[in-house]
Amino acid sequence: MKTLRVPEATVTRLSIYSRFLERLDKNGVTTVSSGEIAEGVGVSPAQVRKDLAYFGEFGTRGVGYNVKDLLKYTLKILGLDQPWSLAIFGAGNLGFALCTYRGFNIRSFHIAGVFDNDPTRIGKKIGNLEVQPLDKFPEIVKSENIRIGVIAVPVSAAQEVADLMVKNGLEAILNFAPVALNVPDHIEIRNVDLSVKLEILTFNLGFRAAQNL
Amino acid sequence: MKTLRVPEATVTRLSIYSRFLERLDKNGVTTVSSGEIAEGVGVSPAQVRKDLAYFGEFGTRGVGYNVKDLLKYTLKILGLDQPWSLAIFGAGNLGFALCTYRGFNIRSFHIAGVFDNDPTRIGKKIGNLEVQPLDKFPEIVKSENIRIGVIAVPVSAAQEVADLMVKNGLEAILNFAPVALNVPDHIEIRNVDLSVKLEILTFNLGFRAAQNL
Repeated sequence: MKTLRVPEATVTRLSIYSRFLERLDKNGVTTVSSGEIAEGVGVSPAQVRKDLAYFGEFGTRGVGYNVKDLLKYTLKILGLDQPWSLAIFGAGNLGFALCTYRGFNIRSFHIAGVFDNDPTRIGKKIGNLEVQPLDKFPEIVKSENIRIGVIAVPVSAAQEVADLMVKNGLEAILNFAPVALNVPDHIEIRNVDLSVKLEILTFNLGFRAAQNL
Repeated sequence: MKTLRVPEATVTRLSIYSRFLERLDKNGVTTVSSGEIAEGVGVSPAQVRKDLAYFGEFGTRGVGYNVKDLLKYTLKILGLDQPWSLAIFGAGNLGFALCTYRGFNIRSFHIAGVFDNDPTRIGKKIGNLEVQPLDKFPEIVKSENIRIGVIAVPVSAAQEVADLMVKNGLEAILNFAPVALNVPDHIEIRNVDLSVKLEILTFNLGFRAAQNL
């Protein structure tokens, strides 16, 4: 499988740049420099230029970037020029929180189903979604064209849910369960650690206190 | 305020290295090379060496690193050679999920209080914690030596909660509300976007499909 070697940090920043460009575009701004993007999102101008350089030549020296063009291009790079339907597995506290989290229903993303195997949860409404039993998954995957699965079940059930997603043709998995899952190579999978930024906080506080080690 | 200019990506990896070193130490491994660390966590050996070089000279050429020493040192760098008590604000679905999330109760971290202003939630038990009203916060901050606040309230209440944290002397804030908060410069604050990795998935899938733009 041929994949472009772009650092994930670059992709993450590209996502942030595209949100900034959306805001500029909404405000009627037509041209932007790498310096303005840098200031708008809090990185260095050199970083912006380096990140964009992964994807070809953009902008005109001394003039900057056309906002609409660059926005359209960044969205295309991010794969957001097409719709993505998601399914959330697990209608416990985390699943509920994710169902109403705006980040999963913006841009090209759309939560198309929420599933659980707990009879006390099945049929419950979360916004305009109704919690479905797992055996409805194969049918809803097809009718809603679900391509991404989100795992918000306990560790003990996470692998089983991942297997079900793979079996039903999902292409990507976002895993909130704190466990490493086995999936075939053709499945894109990323784990979300809710606590990972805690140690960035303590690192910074520690350094302030110590000044040096 | 003097702070060391270390990229957050480096700090994040340092946190990952230290977890790997903990595992090695538990398994009785005493020496490790940068190549072994690299393979264990999925980055390049050059990246490991570059990351560690921010903090001084480690290891012996041809011999590698002493696991216990490097672990101790990375924990110290991360500020984890001291205890950190957390308070979680918001006992809704997300707050509940965070209270039981193991990442907030490992290593040096300990959830010492959960707060909400909703009378239907106050007094409820989450594990061995009882949801407290906001006006108990000043007293519990002191008795539990709480230093980090976690915001899991709706956007509309997030700034007010941040102000309360600052007023009561917290040093750092982890913010799950999708809104930018104003806090004084001496407060360390980081936002957690639960959906940010979605676009890494679609980026990778898009590139596979297109092979090139």
